[in-house]
Amino acid sequence: MVEGVNRLVEELFPTLLSWRRDFHKYAESGWVEFRTASIVADRLSGWGYEVKAGPEVIHPEGRMGVPDESFLAQQEQRAREQGAIAKWLPHFSGGFTGVVGILDTGRPGPTVAFRVDMDALDLQESDAPDHIPAAEGFASVNPVMMHACGHDAHTTIGLGLAYVLSQLKDELRGKIKLIFQPAEEGVRGAKSMVDAGVVDDVDRFFACHIGIGVPLGEVACGTSGYLATTKVDVTYTGVASHAGGHPEDGKNALLAAASAVLNLHSIARHSGGNSRVNVGVLHAGSGRNIIPHHASFKLETRGETSEVNEYTLARAMEIIEGAAAMYGVESNVRIVGKANQCAPSPELLPFIRSQAEKVAEVVSVVDQFQTSGSEDATYMMERVQAKGGLASYLAFGTTLAAGHHNERFDIDEKVLPIAVKTLALCALCAHES
Amino acid sequence: MVEGVNRLVEELFPTLLSWRRDFHKYAESGWVEFRTASIVADRLSGWGYEVKAGPEVIHPEGRMGVPDESFLAQQEQRAREQGAIAKWLPHFSGGFTGVVGILDTGRPGPTVAFRVDMDALDLQESDAPDHIPAAEGFASVNPVMMHACGHDAHTTIGLGLAYVLSQLKDELRGKIKLIFQPAEEGVRGAKSMVDAGVVDDVDRFFACHIGIGVPLGEVACGTSGYLATTKVDVTYTGVASHAGGHPEDGKNALLAAASAVLNLHSIARHSGGNSRVNVGVLHAGSGRNIIPHHASFKLETRGETSEVNEYTLARAMEIIEGAAAMYGVESNVRIVGKANQCAPSPELLPFIRSQAEKVAEVVSVVDQFQTSGSEDATYMMERVQAKGGLASYLAFGTTLAAGHHNERFDIDEKVLPIAVKTLALCALCAHES
Amino acid sequence: MVEGVNRLVEELFPTLLSWRRDFHKYAESGWVEFRTASIVADRLSGWGYEVKAGPEVIHPEGRMGVPDESFLAQQEQRAREQGAIAKWLPHFSGGFTGVVGILDTGRPGPTVAFRVDMDALDLQESDAPDHIPAAEGFASVNPVMMHACGHDAHTTIGLGLAYVLSQLKDELRGKIKLIFQPAEEGVRGAKSMVDAGVVDDVDRFFACHIGIGVPLGEVACGTSGYLATTKVDVTYTGVASHAGGHPEDGKNALLAAASAVLNLHSIARHSGGNSRVNVGVLHAGSGRNIIPHHASFKLETRGETSEVNEYTLARAMEIIEGAAAMYGVESNVRIVGKANQCAPSPELLPFIRSQAEKVAEVVSVVDQFQTSGSEDATYMMERVQAKGGLASYLAFGTTLAAGHHNERFDIDEKVLPIAVKTLALCALCAHES
Amino acid sequence: MVEGVNRLVEELFPTLLSWRRDFHKYAESGWVEFRTASIVADRLSGWGYEVKAGPEVIHPEGRMGVPDESFLAQQEQRAREQGAIAKWLPHFSGGFTGVVGILDTGRPGPTVAFRVDMDALDLQESDAPDHIPAAEGFASVNPVMMHACGHDAHTTIGLGLAYVLSQLKDELRGKIKLIFQPAEEGVRGAKSMVDAGVVDDVDRFFACHIGIGVPLGEVACGTSGYLATTKVDVTYTGVASHAGGHPEDGKNALLAAASAVLNLHSIARHSGGNSRVNVGVLHAGSGRNIIPHHASFKLETRGETSEVNEYTLARAMEIIEGAAAMYGVESNVRIVGKANQCAPSPELLPFIRSQAEKVAEVVSVVDQFQTSGSEDATYMMERVQAKGGLASYLAFGTTLAAGHHNERFDIDEKVLPIAVKTLALCALCAHES
Repeated sequence: MVEGVNRLVEELFPTLLSWRRDFHKYAESGWVEFRTASIVADRLSGWGYEVKAGPEVIHPEGRMGVPDESFLAQQEQRAREQGAIAKWLPHFSGGFTGVVGILDTGRPGPTVAFRVDMDALDLQESDAPDHIPAAEGFASVNPVMMHACGHDAHTTIGLGLAYVLSQLKDELRGKIKLIFQPAEEGVRGAKSMVDAGVVDDVDRFFACHIGIGVPLGEVACGTSGYLATTKVDVTYTGVASHAGGHPEDGKNALLAAASAVLNLHSIARHSGGNSRVNVGVLHAGSGRNIIPHHASFKLETRGETSEVNEYTLARAMEIIEGAAAMYGVESNVRIVGKANQCAPSPELLPFIRSQAEKVAEVVSVVDQFQTSGSEDATYMMERVQAKGGLASYLAFGTTLAAGHHNERFDIDEKVLPIAVKTLALCALCAHES
Repeated sequence: MVEGVNRLVEELFPTLLSWRRDFHKYAESGWVEFRTASIVADRLSGWGYEVKAGPEVIHPEGRMGVPDESFLAQQEQRAREQGAIAKWLPHFSGGFTGVVGILDTGRPGPTVAFRVDMDALDLQESDAPDHIPAAEGFASVNPVMMHACGHDAHTTIGLGLAYVLSQLKDELRGKIKLIFQPAEEGVRGAKSMVDAGVVDDVDRFFACHIGIGVPLGEVACGTSGYLATTKVDVTYTGVASHAGGHPEDGKNALLAAASAVLNLHSIARHSGGNSRVNVGVLHAGSGRNIIPHHASFKLETRGETSEVNEYTLARAMEIIEGAAAMYGVESNVRIVGKANQCAPSPELLPFIRSQAEKVAEVVSVVDQFQTSGSEDATYMMERVQAKGGLASYLAFGTTLAAGHHNERFDIDEKVLPIAVKTLALCALCAHES
Repeated sequence: MVEGVNRLVEELFPTLLSWRRDFHKYAESGWVEFRTASIVADRLSGWGYEVKAGPEVIHPEGRMGVPDESFLAQQEQRAREQGAIAKWLPHFSGGFTGVVGILDTGRPGPTVAFRVDMDALDLQESDAPDHIPAAEGFASVNPVMMHACGHDAHTTIGLGLAYVLSQLKDELRGKIKLIFQPAEEGVRGAKSMVDAGVVDDVDRFFACHIGIGVPLGEVACGTSGYLATTKVDVTYTGVASHAGGHPEDGKNALLAAASAVLNLHSIARHSGGNSRVNVGVLHAGSGRNIIPHHASFKLETRGETSEVNEYTLARAMEIIEGAAAMYGVESNVRIVGKANQCAPSPELLPFIRSQAEKVAEVVSVVDQFQTSGSEDATYMMERVQAKGGLASYLAFGTTLAAGHHNERFDIDEKVLPIAVKTLALCALCAHES
Repeated sequence: MVEGVNRLVEELFPTLLSWRRDFHKYAESGWVEFRTASIVADRLSGWGYEVKAGPEVIHPEGRMGVPDESFLAQQEQRAREQGAIAKWLPHFSGGFTGVVGILDTGRPGPTVAFRVDMDALDLQESDAPDHIPAAEGFASVNPVMMHACGHDAHTTIGLGLAYVLSQLKDELRGKIKLIFQPAEEGVRGAKSMVDAGVVDDVDRFFACHIGIGVPLGEVACGTSGYLATTKVDVTYTGVASHAGGHPEDGKNALLAAASAVLNLHSIARHSGGNSRVNVGVLHAGSGRNIIPHHASFKLETRGETSEVNEYTLARAMEIIEGAAAMYGVESNVRIVGKANQCAPSPELLPFIRSQAEKVAEVVSVVDQFQTSGSEDATYMMERVQAKGGLASYLAFGTTLAAGHHNERFDIDEKVLPIAVKTLALCALCAHES
């Protein structure tokens, strides 16, 4: 079995590279992965997977941070022009860019799910000559959209895994579900797939990330420390007035926002664990001599436990409303992203270790890698664990040219076959776990 | 007539000094002028005035900033021990320390009112050897109560005027009303006397102040620039918690108050005229390692017009409530003082000038003196003017040892006869105005 | 003389309209009035004026708020393509877009100066069908540049005046100076012309504005109430850090800016007169989960007197630096505009009245119109008055489609001949003033 | 040996009760434990200990938060009147209320130190009839001083231990040091004893606390989780001014303090562990209509590690100075308390367990009790460990009538013999550890 996997993946390696570079070049940000999702759906279908796409795997109300209609329409058109597979686009239209491929062996065995994400960041890719994607011609052609977190690699790994398992179908048992999720950045997409029931029947669940500080050749069987988080967009609307002539007629949205920002950062720590608050972006006002009548800011809260995050968020809401009341401005508050804290199932870690150790290029296996930040695969893990299944979040090490979310981010593509092999073995041996 | 006034006042001069020094020694702050008011009532009665005292001249609900019951009772007892006239005390009991003396000539003529105030400040008088009240033994014996604004002189002037007019009764026409008001400091008392109807029948109204920057020998016929003002006490009540152990359980009244203070001072200026905001005092918290669960602060707003003050006050209320909401603390807001902006009646100024010029010690008369600060006699002026009468607020200059509200404040007592003479002439000639 | 002026201006009326609409269509913002200034210089030269242009009338160090080099170069190219007179462009290159036309009669008499401004606002003009410039095809073709304050009319009035005076040269005495100033918006340009000595020899000085609340047919001989003002741009630079992973490594420029904004608005009022503070625009941060490492804001202070403005500005500087110190961020503070408070010379008002009353279309003349806001012509008035000359700032009424600085601002062009006639008479009769 | 200890402690029990109740009744707060320290010194001396007292065990510059001279003098007089042992008072005069008793066996063996604290809290004890100290007549007679944390019991335990060891001297080896520390509340005293070298020669160090959530009959061999902390007092001095008349002349200490408070609470969390910030008390201003010219506040920072606390403190200092600079006020910052985070030596825990298990009344022994809050015995532990010794902080459980620092705090005195027995055994067997 290991030999079969090895051979298939090695033959596939040049294809993996071309896939990854194609996704990198046509980077698409969250909820507008029209081209990417259409290619994924088309390939899965071609390899014999039952494909579910769009609203049947994305619950409309579970989505967070969806762009407005006109942007969605414009991006769908952009995708069409960049080679999206036309027949699949209607599934995704309106921001439903999720795909699930199902391979049912008909034989008894567990339902085993793998989840990868597909979206790029809102970032302009570097055109520096020593940035390999620029030098080799696969830097993003889409302005202010860049795969600077490695989701191009994740999508590629998902497709590689799909191909390999389709070739080794006779050796599988139970059912395989390959989940291609949109909009992980900003933790906006996973909840809608959970709400659509995508993981309700899953017995074993594997999500993964490349890089995140793990060296090339090392595999972490589980990743801990993801903080529960909520992302909030706030807009204050007041009344403009000439600052010299009639200051008393204004309702000052900037002063309300400045008060909110200061007091948000003053939320008391929680004895139940670490917390975080950040207002990362604020824009306010239209002209120097006008009382600012609008202000908008982007906030996130985090907590070592979901309780700590919920406490912090609840306090944030009080402050946002109180500051608005101080200045008589209207507030509009939208939850645009959410992820929970979640730990890998300890029982699953030895199983993953034993599969990873079968892969020749793996030089080191660790049980748990401690990270920070947030991840919305935790929604899926939580649901699987709640239903009695086991779940983990693996990390596949790779060398990074620059840190995640940097305009010069780049990976060592040798991680691609390592990840495909390890996950394929997890699928093939899942009944032993 | 001038000679009669001159002679009477000059004979009275030593008595005026002893009265003023007695009041200075037994300084009583607002609403507890039990001793002062009882002496005033007793003298007026002795000189043949009809005396109204207590609730018949003080409307209970019009009072602002009244101390609590136990303090009132304790102070009444203190006054009794310091020589208050016992038979008058029942009128004033519970904080109704106002007196009005009426002299009805029975002859046709205007009703002419004079208003003086009787209260001391909450201030500890200096015991420095070069402070004359200390050196000559009439510094205040009441702790943290001091006549540092000259109301001891005002009460004395009112009594002197009462005596002189009682002696010259046959030369008067119409009706004389001498109004002795409590609690001018903090602008707390005048409204209650207006609400009780004290000035409803008044045709000519004269209030006055000594000092305020006018030199000895100068009389200002009117005083302008008093700002409309409101005094507000705010208390926030939150929840205490150990700051190390369970910070999340606290509701932080100090942070709410700090936010309120900053944002109160940020209230936008008004194009309709000058405004002011000040939080003069703030106390919060009980211990370094406890989340502060109480905070209280003293606020005042001012405006060049009543509209500007009302705007500023309304904004202040929004901020006070909004800041409380930010921290989930309960707010308690009390209006403890209020005065309006009011201008002297221009028609009355030449009349006052002509009387002042009859007084030998007056070396200079100005029509209007520009001041700042606030005064609640404006309530009375406003009512008189609204009913068709004329009103002014005079200033009698004197040399000050230190500024008003300073612990070493002292006056040149030569102002006392100047004021009595001028006002007596105003009463005697009022039918000419 | 009046008839000559009347006839000339009436013949010129269609030309005035075409000039004004041309300037409106090719609106150019402050320091990039390359096309406008080149046309002005060319016409003045053609009519026999001695023309001074560029650095000889614009002191480099007196300029405030000049855009960066690349923007200046790009705009000069844009102007060239839009019909700027090529031979004049070298004078203005690099942001020196001022012009002065001099007509020396050689006869004894006063030096009489007229100042108009030429710059547009940074505003996108409305394309609504009922907005006349849009409907009639002369809306601005330059994005985010619009004559929404009437400076297109001012430039036209200056040119019309130049033409008329050139035709009536034999009736003039002394010397005429026509000053076409750049960058009045943001009060950035006048100081540089004063520093270059442009008004040092001026005996009578006339600036003017159309609209500002004065009705069509009315002329105000003087305008009072302009507040002294300073415009300040502030940038804070801190250190970015991941808000979840390493919050302690950041230096938070947004928190520094929020503190600065709140405390700037808390600057105490001044007893010497009205003051204003406004932070009209703030932008900070790059991403929700990043500690914001940059923040920039636009501030203005104003004062009823220059002293009050200087006090407010000095306090603002303390706060800006103190807030930066609180967060360890670097601050960069630039003064980008400045104007003084200045009153018209009272002696000049009757003279202006007598000229305005000669104009048939003028139905009402007022001595002084009370405004608010700020104006940098005050720099010139102040210098002229300091040297012993007389100066005023006239207002010519007109009907406005929408207020100044609104995207639908438009004027009734009948104000153009009224202004040209009145100013021409002021020039012709200046020796009588 | 166990029998000897048992017998001695049981005989001593009534005496322990009377000592504890006497200390409770004459509660003395930090640095004024004149009566307590004199009694301790006298008893130790009587039992044959070499006694060091005052400056030889308290380094003057290591003291923090010492009251002013006049309070120290007044309290020394108070202690004298309440039965302090006169001959010892000169040692303690001026706030040097520490005592160390040394028992040198002359036999080889380790130097073993025990540390107890002696100070009361600044709290008014309850006089409720169901509060046992009130009911039984040993409630504190000193106003606003109360043993509400159990240090009366600690002093009693220290004395009981001293007595028992003096009786069993022949069974001891090495040297015994009994350290009676002043001013633990506010973590002000320990550093001065460390700086005086008191623990430099110590091989085994035992500190202890009663209560803190441990049930009666349970002993915790070590206590973890004490947070590193720093206590800071801040005073701002500005300039007063009349808020109506000349607001511009003031320098507003309250606004500076409000800004400081808000921004102090906004200090970013640290990825290295939990942190805390609290401003627990703020007082500012003198009168409603005066720009507040003074403000003072009490701050504490805490950190899960000393690094985290140092980071938080350094940020606090930047904010305190920056806020002062914003308002041009002078700041005075004093460190008035400090404690480190410190963990018990793991090697020592089994030894303590084995001694505790010998005590009949001990029903449960736990290795480590997790607490929060702060303790300055950590200074001593840190020094002992740095010199190669072993140190731990024990907790002896008891039933509490109300929580620590509550006005109705009371203990179950059965904890006293448990503690004395356990510690005596630790001393007697220390050579085995």
